[in-house]
Amino acid sequence: MDLKKLLEDVKNNNLDVEDALEKLKDLPYEDLGYAHIDHHRSLRNGYPEVIYCKGKSDEHVLGIIDKMNKKNTNILGTRCRKETFEKIAKIYPNAEYEELSQVLKIKNEEIKEEGKGKILIITGGTSDIPVADEAYYTAKFFGNKVERLYDVGVAGIHRLLNNRKVIEEARVIVAVAGMEGALPSVLGGLVRVPVIAVPTSIGYGANFDGLAPLLTMLNSCASGISVVNIDNGFGAGYLASIINKLK
Amino acid sequence: MDLKKLLEDVKNNNLDVEDALEKLKDLPYEDLGYAHIDHHRSLRNGYPEVIYCKGKSDEHVLGIIDKMNKKNTNILGTRCRKETFEKIAKIYPNAEYEELSQVLKIKNEEIKEEGKGKILIITGGTSDIPVADEAYYTAKFFGNKVERLYDVGVAGIHRLLNNRKVIEEARVIVAVAGMEGALPSVLGGLVRVPVIAVPTSIGYGANFDGLAPLLTMLNSCASGISVVNIDNGFGAGYLASIINKLK
Amino acid sequence: MDLKKLLEDVKNNNLDVEDALEKLKDLPYEDLGYAHIDHHRSLRNGYPEVIYCKGKSDEHVLGIIDKMNKKNTNILGTRCRKETFEKIAKIYPNAEYEELSQVLKIKNEEIKEEGKGKILIITGGTSDIPVADEAYYTAKFFGNKVERLYDVGVAGIHRLLNNRKVIEEARVIVAVAGMEGALPSVLGGLVRVPVIAVPTSIGYGANFDGLAPLLTMLNSCASGISVVNIDNGFGAGYLASIINKLK
Amino acid sequence: MDLKKLLEDVKNNNLDVEDALEKLKDLPYEDLGYAHIDHHRSLRNGYPEVIYCKGKSDEHVLGIIDKMNKKNTNILGTRCRKETFEKIAKIYPNAEYEELSQVLKIKNEEIKEEGKGKILIITGGTSDIPVADEAYYTAKFFGNKVERLYDVGVAGIHRLLNNRKVIEEARVIVAVAGMEGALPSVLGGLVRVPVIAVPTSIGYGANFDGLAPLLTMLNSCASGISVVNIDNGFGAGYLASIINKLK
Amino acid sequence: MDLKKLLEDVKNNNLDVEDALEKLKDLPYEDLGYAHIDHHRSLRNGYPEVIYCKGKSDEHVLGIIDKMNKKNTNILGTRCRKETFEKIAKIYPNAEYEELSQVLKIKNEEIKEEGKGKILIITGGTSDIPVADEAYYTAKFFGNKVERLYDVGVAGIHRLLNNRKVIEEARVIVAVAGMEGALPSVLGGLVRVPVIAVPTSIGYGANFDGLAPLLTMLNSCASGISVVNIDNGFGAGYLASIINKLK
Amino acid sequence: MDLKKLLEDVKNNNLDVEDALEKLKDLPYEDLGYAHIDHHRSLRNGYPEVIYCKGKSDEHVLGIIDKMNKKNTNILGTRCRKETFEKIAKIYPNAEYEELSQVLKIKNEEIKEEGKGKILIITGGTSDIPVADEAYYTAKFFGNKVERLYDVGVAGIHRLLNNRKVIEEARVIVAVAGMEGALPSVLGGLVRVPVIAVPTSIGYGANFDGLAPLLTMLNSCASGISVVNIDNGFGAGYLASIINKLK
Amino acid sequence: MDLKKLLEDVKNNNLDVEDALEKLKDLPYEDLGYAHIDHHRSLRNGYPEVIYCKGKSDEHVLGIIDKMNKKNTNILGTRCRKETFEKIAKIYPNAEYEELSQVLKIKNEEIKEEGKGKILIITGGTSDIPVADEAYYTAKFFGNKVERLYDVGVAGIHRLLNNRKVIEEARVIVAVAGMEGALPSVLGGLVRVPVIAVPTSIGYGANFDGLAPLLTMLNSCASGISVVNIDNGFGAGYLASIINKLK
Amino acid sequence: MDLKKLLEDVKNNNLDVEDALEKLKDLPYEDLGYAHIDHHRSLRNGYPEVIYCKGKSDEHVLGIIDKMNKKNTNILGTRCRKETFEKIAKIYPNAEYEELSQVLKIKNEEIKEEGKGKILIITGGTSDIPVADEAYYTAKFFGNKVERLYDVGVAGIHRLLNNRKVIEEARVIVAVAGMEGALPSVLGGLVRVPVIAVPTSIGYGANFDGLAPLLTMLNSCASGISVVNIDNGFGAGYLASIINKLK
Repeated sequence: MDLKKLLEDVKNNNLDVEDALEKLKDLPYEDLGYAHIDHHRSLRNGYPEVIYCKGKSDEHVLGIIDKMNKKNTNILGTRCRKETFEKIAKIYPNAEYEELSQVLKIKNEEIKEEGKGKILIITGGTSDIPVADEAYYTAKFFGNKVERLYDVGVAGIHRLLNNRKVIEEARVIVAVAGMEGALPSVLGGLVRVPVIAVPTSIGYGANFDGLAPLLTMLNSCASGISVVNIDNGFGAGYLASIINKLK
Repeated sequence: MDLKKLLEDVKNNNLDVEDALEKLKDLPYEDLGYAHIDHHRSLRNGYPEVIYCKGKSDEHVLGIIDKMNKKNTNILGTRCRKETFEKIAKIYPNAEYEELSQVLKIKNEEIKEEGKGKILIITGGTSDIPVADEAYYTAKFFGNKVERLYDVGVAGIHRLLNNRKVIEEARVIVAVAGMEGALPSVLGGLVRVPVIAVPTSIGYGANFDGLAPLLTMLNSCASGISVVNIDNGFGAGYLASIINKLK
Repeated sequence: MDLKKLLEDVKNNNLDVEDALEKLKDLPYEDLGYAHIDHHRSLRNGYPEVIYCKGKSDEHVLGIIDKMNKKNTNILGTRCRKETFEKIAKIYPNAEYEELSQVLKIKNEEIKEEGKGKILIITGGTSDIPVADEAYYTAKFFGNKVERLYDVGVAGIHRLLNNRKVIEEARVIVAVAGMEGALPSVLGGLVRVPVIAVPTSIGYGANFDGLAPLLTMLNSCASGISVVNIDNGFGAGYLASIINKLK
Repeated sequence: MDLKKLLEDVKNNNLDVEDALEKLKDLPYEDLGYAHIDHHRSLRNGYPEVIYCKGKSDEHVLGIIDKMNKKNTNILGTRCRKETFEKIAKIYPNAEYEELSQVLKIKNEEIKEEGKGKILIITGGTSDIPVADEAYYTAKFFGNKVERLYDVGVAGIHRLLNNRKVIEEARVIVAVAGMEGALPSVLGGLVRVPVIAVPTSIGYGANFDGLAPLLTMLNSCASGISVVNIDNGFGAGYLASIINKLK
Repeated sequence: MDLKKLLEDVKNNNLDVEDALEKLKDLPYEDLGYAHIDHHRSLRNGYPEVIYCKGKSDEHVLGIIDKMNKKNTNILGTRCRKETFEKIAKIYPNAEYEELSQVLKIKNEEIKEEGKGKILIITGGTSDIPVADEAYYTAKFFGNKVERLYDVGVAGIHRLLNNRKVIEEARVIVAVAGMEGALPSVLGGLVRVPVIAVPTSIGYGANFDGLAPLLTMLNSCASGISVVNIDNGFGAGYLASIINKLK
Repeated sequence: MDLKKLLEDVKNNNLDVEDALEKLKDLPYEDLGYAHIDHHRSLRNGYPEVIYCKGKSDEHVLGIIDKMNKKNTNILGTRCRKETFEKIAKIYPNAEYEELSQVLKIKNEEIKEEGKGKILIITGGTSDIPVADEAYYTAKFFGNKVERLYDVGVAGIHRLLNNRKVIEEARVIVAVAGMEGALPSVLGGLVRVPVIAVPTSIGYGANFDGLAPLLTMLNSCASGISVVNIDNGFGAGYLASIINKLK
Repeated sequence: MDLKKLLEDVKNNNLDVEDALEKLKDLPYEDLGYAHIDHHRSLRNGYPEVIYCKGKSDEHVLGIIDKMNKKNTNILGTRCRKETFEKIAKIYPNAEYEELSQVLKIKNEEIKEEGKGKILIITGGTSDIPVADEAYYTAKFFGNKVERLYDVGVAGIHRLLNNRKVIEEARVIVAVAGMEGALPSVLGGLVRVPVIAVPTSIGYGANFDGLAPLLTMLNSCASGISVVNIDNGFGAGYLASIINKLK
Repeated sequence: MDLKKLLEDVKNNNLDVEDALEKLKDLPYEDLGYAHIDHHRSLRNGYPEVIYCKGKSDEHVLGIIDKMNKKNTNILGTRCRKETFEKIAKIYPNAEYEELSQVLKIKNEEIKEEGKGKILIITGGTSDIPVADEAYYTAKFFGNKVERLYDVGVAGIHRLLNNRKVIEEARVIVAVAGMEGALPSVLGGLVRVPVIAVPTSIGYGANFDGLAPLLTMLNSCASGISVVNIDNGFGAGYLASIINKLK
């Protein structure tokens, strides 16, 4: 909203006071009662609205998609159960689904590649893949080149070191690890780009649902590392995209 | 080390096998017994070595500085007690000290400004300043334009909103907050650049030495946010610098 | 019980000692073996007895309702599973049920509006609605004007600020939020009425079943805020009602 | 700020556009570099600015007081060390100090009694008094009738029950308790007014710096209770004042 | 085993050295491979062996009962699932089962009443009954007079105070409470007998599976209270029995 | 207070209503403002009042002793700093002090031995002695035969087993242990008397201020064990005394 | 890989530079996309690759086995669900399965006994057997003599002491215990061989999923003890094997 | 003690029953009242008694040394403050002290080298040295060849990889690390000998006094690793010695 323009309109009597007052309140949120959809977020933040499906009823998810779809933006859903997707697919035949990572995609317009470099998604183990793939599909959906390098944890340090070339080519790295979560620390010492660490809730007993790798990553003695929430693949992919698009 | 060159030298008999073997092991670490100084780190990572002074005896700190100084690199010390600084200053008259944030600086060469944009350091309250200043001096030391905006916490949301211009100009934001740590969440919704969140150990009872704002920041429902360790101003400043220098 | 009256009756021989002793013990609790129903609580506290259904067998719930219903008071049940409600509805055709929030209502007498102002229930997100609705139906059942404003979390601060009018009209605010739980802090800075904060167990990994927003709310640097237990919509609605009825 | 008035002034050419734009940004915050003082907070919230002294240097505290004092408002400082007070008293001879609770008071105008009823501050033990007194002096400073009832914890339930009259007269109760923190639960069953529970960090081993009474109070099975942070006497006194002034 | 007698037998050549050595090792444990049954425990400790059924396969439970039953002792099983009981009942027709508390009883000999006084089992709420009943049936099975007083929590303090007579008659009290767990503190101030506190995992959010009442009880400022594990009704009933049988 | 007598006095006009009302409130608490002393507690509970000195100012401690001393009861102080004792000793020459355990004793009347058996205080290590001695002096002060057996932890199981005779003679055992806190479990298997377990905050890193032995003791698979708070020697000695005096 | 040989080959022109470069990268990892199999690990570490099946899809597990099996090594799978095993057994008829401990074994070559002594697996209770058996089958699979001694916890210390002979014969001991986890402490005092402690998640309330025995074991005051993760039978069996094979 | 011999002596009338009984109790513990010294521990466990000095008064430490010294064994003291050492040195001129690690050594007999291989002590950083040195001096004192490799943490992985030769020569490795504690995981993948992991309490905020590296190490996905308590250098050195002496 152009505040100066509005004030000038008031001054020039192109807009009366009551209408101006109204306009000042009339920001582009759409109120569904159970949700406020922010259609201008793509404007403000350069990205479409994202639906975090978990904890929402199928009716709510469908209602939100309905409103969004009318604006013809691209729509990304995370933590979308397969049953929910199947209901969606009946209405929106262009809906796509990644089963392992539970990512829903509805593409209403071409995705333009806007990232400046390549994002690399790395995992310590095979079990971290669902979280890593959530980051992967998120970053791709927001217009980035993304590569994957999975199961290269520090217990077999050669697996990691043998892939130094692909690691060094990345502009942003997303490092996903459960168990002891030491992967980002080793990566942080090898590269000079930002490393986004994602702890996962994978592991034996004292993993405590991801607390162990979370603390490991926060305490990393390597620099250039920051951490997102446990299992938060979306958050990591989104942040990687923001960094990769910095001009 | 150029592996191809080395192999060609061997092939061309410019280097014999034993020497080649030796060279492969001869990486530029200097072993002081109590510390391995990584002189090539500036080469590999684009930055000078940093000394985390806490928990090291003054003798160790001085010994490390001595070795570094011979290479004529710039030296940054964090968590440096005033007494330690005073011993250092007697030997290195060009040493500088920031008392509030306990930052030590020895500049042996000009700091070149290499960052592409501006880094903004924001705090929720006055008590967060020591941590925020550690981030500030770190980012400046590594060649960035850095600005400060202090005491604009969410309990008085207007203080923050009134500064939207300076906020929107930043290329990277470091948000430092104790108490409930909600500042990064609000910032994350206002901008489209990376927000590095730093929880501080400032606060009443159930702050639990920074655990409360740490959890708040990890759980932020805004996107584009990642978190470093409690009170880790250096880590935030360093990461901000890496991001700001991305080409 | 009027102690003075009782003593005068003893003095005047309208009541003999043994009967007086008996009366002093004869408080209006009804003992079902597995539960003590407090029929005079409505008298003492101005409210009907409330049944927390979770963890009670259907037989116990029905037994408690049976006793209460004979006194013709209004009955509120929380955390009432749908199967339990269906058994209840067969016996008490006037029973009503709110499915999302699992609230049971049996109205045996008109609900009088006794609150002096309006209670506002706000949520940060869509997933917080079940807890928020428990507060909503509780506050309404106890005779208050209640309004709802849902999905206005701090990550999109404009959604909140655009609703300042409805916020400023409230006499008591119940702020329900999961994830990082920063909503009450921002509200606390905007209004001069009590804000009752309700953390919910909604969120990714390090939410730790509501611990994260709980700590956030306890550590709020805004004033005028107090906190109830995680997911405790009933407690918040009840307290809001008490405050709203203060003369 | 009256937005409608401003727009009308623009319309009527009493205010030109640039000045209006400026005014819209010119909110009454005063920027000291290290702190933003909110002089209009008393206007917006009905209360003077409060200084939380802990973690601020004496220079910062004095600087903040200096700015405030020029507005002639009343000033309340909490967690003010005795040494800090002594420096303040030299400059502001009307400064007063409560040693046990570390409360600082500078009265520049008469305190008007605006509360509608009486606030009662209760403690479980003698050791809870410093926290309770912080609540007491806060509530009094903001214009309320306040009474104290100390050392009436539940381990000697008669001490509490013998004081039912004073308890029942209160319009708001602040219940301060360490150890197991059961006092608010018993109070909640006795009265029909809001009970603000304050856990304190007083106690043996598994008290864990106030965690034990904090959890007790959050889990109270009595209704009408809400909780503030551990040792947060100020927060409780402030909230009690807000509730007591509700019309 | 009478060591003196054994040594005298050796001396008097009534027992040769090898047999004595053997006897010294031949303690009355029966080794089933997966379990060591301690048949003499009833001798040493005055009680039959007890089977904690949870986490054992039905085959293991039946195997243990089989061995025990041959010694004709009484057998108590705790946390016994209904399906397990039904298998047992087919083989041991005298087996009895308490469904709510999952207690299994096989009486092969008369239970003699050996306790000196009365044990009282009290609960704060209705939901605590399964744990309380485990204590109740345990104490009865080991030969004690036991009484129950349920749903008399501190939020309605009169329910408790109205039952002072039955409370004062007890020689040992078992106080079972979830939620905030304040019941034992109030009891501890009313009586001069031991109070065994049992926290239960009943409650809303920040109960944290019984951690809240556990901490409350450990921190009780009343004396004469000690605590057993969360939901450990058996442990409380067993300890109450030991105390009640003290001569 | 004899309620029946009072009512009869009212009936017989030996007491008028107002005086009776007054008497009903006139319970024998003495209100010092900062403390309610319960002079009749010795009557109700068979014990003198105990002063927990920690967290009370010397003035408060002296004030409480002054009031108590006038009733000529025996007085026990715990966690009494040496400096406080020295002030006390100047006024009350019969005051005694145990330095290691910080126990204060003022004997105004003969201590009668009322316990039926012997209480045994056992520690796992030498460092647990201060807590164990608090239990020892408490139990002796309340009229019991008490014996000590120190430094017999389970890592050298023979030290414990070699003392079986003294262990088996006890009527109540107080087992004090830090580190891993396994002592009570082994004791619980050896005896058939109540074992009161006291975790101490002694130990290396993951002891977490006593949390480790606390959890060990709560989870003991031996029966007949209950637990008091970390370092709570007084609570254990007091409870042991109550049990030992049971008739 | 023999680096010296490679360099000599380059020198002697038996290998050209590009091929040498290639070889230096060509380490024997096989990349399946979702997993990196380390075929040379048996070479480097003396053991076959182990599959941690939990959290991997059946397709992934089968894919990994397929690659491994082609190398004809022995294969051990842990946490393998029965349904997964059944799919495996259809393809690999020599696959074996231990149901209680969920261990999968495919033997493609004879297991040679290489351990120097005997490994003893001890449990505190019957419920710890699944974890203990995972250690047992692991240690056997890697070529060790292994013995089992189950259900000899410290609450009946004689069960343990009666088995001192078998305990003293072991070269390495794996001690598995839930509940309070005191078994390793007592063992540590009895033997002079390494004791590997495994906490299990078996137990009542405050066991907190194995946290209680974990802390107990870490805090053991006996020496010669170290700890692996909660329920990590495999890790204990593997480490015991490494120690037992030390020459 | 030779039980068979004793029994034969009884049989042959070389020992009468009372004396035999006495002997059976007369195990070689010396009771100082505040401590039980186990002189035969060196016999049973192959090592001298060790004194954990922290938490013991100087008098107690001296008393224990006095008794031990009379047996002419070697004595090791850990966590010995310098002041305590100075008192000891006055009495025992052969006492030695390591200041950084607070280790006390009194050598009354030659230390024989009995270990079969070499023990390697590695640290992640310079600040971990005090803990590492405690392990170093312990292992040396018990008769082992020990080497040190300090400041080779995973954030500069080359520092570690460049030292592979010394790493591969070790028979047992003690890996000491604070911060994120990832060092043992990387080591575990490089060697086939036991790795004893020691978390230290070194680090920024969310290290939580060593909890972070403790959890990291417990959750290590490398095998052959076990963990001792936070900062427990002694325990690691002692266990390393036991393993290194295995025949």
